[in-house]
Amino acid sequence: MDILKKFVQKDHFAAHLGVEMLECGDGRARAKMTLQKHHLNSAGMTHGGAIFSLADAVFSAASNSHGTLAVAINVSISFFKAVSSGTLTAEAEEVSLNPKLATYVITVKDENASRIALFQGTVYRKKDSLADLVK
Amino acid sequence: MDILKKFVQKDHFAAHLGVEMLECGDGRARAKMTLQKHHLNSAGMTHGGAIFSLADAVFSAASNSHGTLAVAINVSISFFKAVSSGTLTAEAEEVSLNPKLATYVITVKDENASRIALFQGTVYRKKDSLADLVK
Amino acid sequence: MDILKKFVQKDHFAAHLGVEMLECGDGRARAKMTLQKHHLNSAGMTHGGAIFSLADAVFSAASNSHGTLAVAINVSISFFKAVSSGTLTAEAEEVSLNPKLATYVITVKDENASRIALFQGTVYRKKDSLADLVK
Amino acid sequence: MDILKKFVQKDHFAAHLGVEMLECGDGRARAKMTLQKHHLNSAGMTHGGAIFSLADAVFSAASNSHGTLAVAINVSISFFKAVSSGTLTAEAEEVSLNPKLATYVITVKDENASRIALFQGTVYRKKDSLADLVK
Repeated sequence: MDILKKFVQKDHFAAHLGVEMLECGDGRARAKMTLQKHHLNSAGMTHGGAIFSLADAVFSAASNSHGTLAVAINVSISFFKAVSSGTLTAEAEEVSLNPKLATYVITVKDENASRIALFQGTVYRKKDSLADLVK
Repeated sequence: MDILKKFVQKDHFAAHLGVEMLECGDGRARAKMTLQKHHLNSAGMTHGGAIFSLADAVFSAASNSHGTLAVAINVSISFFKAVSSGTLTAEAEEVSLNPKLATYVITVKDENASRIALFQGTVYRKKDSLADLVK
Repeated sequence: MDILKKFVQKDHFAAHLGVEMLECGDGRARAKMTLQKHHLNSAGMTHGGAIFSLADAVFSAASNSHGTLAVAINVSISFFKAVSSGTLTAEAEEVSLNPKLATYVITVKDENASRIALFQGTVYRKKDSLADLVK
Repeated sequence: MDILKKFVQKDHFAAHLGVEMLECGDGRARAKMTLQKHHLNSAGMTHGGAIFSLADAVFSAASNSHGTLAVAINVSISFFKAVSSGTLTAEAEEVSLNPKLATYVITVKDENASRIALFQGTVYRKKDSLADLVK
């Protein structure tokens, strides 16, 4: 758990976007991101890339929670609703865990707990120890 | 074309990530992003969210090139190769254009022209005029 | 409901594969398919197309349950486990319903209630009345 | 090549649907399927599962063309156009080949060479020899 937290803290991209990890461990993770001007697209709504990146941060935390490095190989995301302000929350659930592959579903919600996106992602599980990576 | 360029320039998120649009129009778009520390994930590689966001920027430019607002409804992305430095390039191709829906394939390459990701995305085409949005 | 059942009964492809609808209505649907030799692939396991098609049948029933025609525009499916015999069950859940678009998650399980695939699909909702289509 | 053809001939599901392999080998494959009543859905159009299955057959042939068993782990498919009769053709292209993973793009066209679907799929490459599997 401590190792996972150290790993999560080293995520420069998530920090650049203002993603805040709320909890993570045992195949799960939850994070939030408060929308700012730099999250918006040309139409004044939250950029798909910003929503994806919040979901990707919990996908990474959840899939790396078993002590070895997990790398994303495929993600599918559906967008349901445009949002331009407030705080978004993303939560990951592990739907399948095999020795080499694992799949997660991440739900992104707005402040009113309305689903704004659904993210389904698969990782390849490498043998590298997370403990070595955070040294 | 001028309207599309104005529209692209209003993408705050793409600017925050350092995405530079190289060309866009007529269902196509090409952009680049030079990797910096803030694009990296916990394992020191380019974050999936950063690669997705670069691809998403050209997806947006290409799908909004027909004069009316296009909003992303679904994206699937596959990651092939980890990269930690250099400049990435993304290029969008329109594979289907219907009155209400359109689909694009975006290829992301590294400096050696190796494919690092493939992004397939569908938009819903609204009736809002792009010219009105950039006023 | 009666109209939906008539609509489901007209699915020639589902019948050809031996899909049996167990219940459907109000954005939900559940079906089963008993595996036979003609569902198998070259490696002797259930074909990805057979699993997809079972899931697609409940996707169709659930998304057409609101009285107007829904057509699939995008699906992403992840396969977790190979199965070669027994009865598979698929269940659809509606995760988003907008006037023009709706998204469903379908879980496919084997006889031991192990998840073997997860299917995330989006439909475009047309104005055609289902009642007219089944006349 | 001979081994791959034997492997393809053992695909019971593809045979049940009337898929005819035209050519396969070296990361590529092409097949056709003439639409019949049993390929249609409740709305009288070709079933998404039938289109997926045709694409899946060439995905399987292309990904198994390197001599070792490849199993599908994820597929995303977009549907562009409804078709109710004629002959469909699917062609696979290998976009990435790594020791453990490979990704293919399959384009499905109707008789007029219009794209009706785009399929992006990833396989996990096992060590089992195809030659042993077709014995």
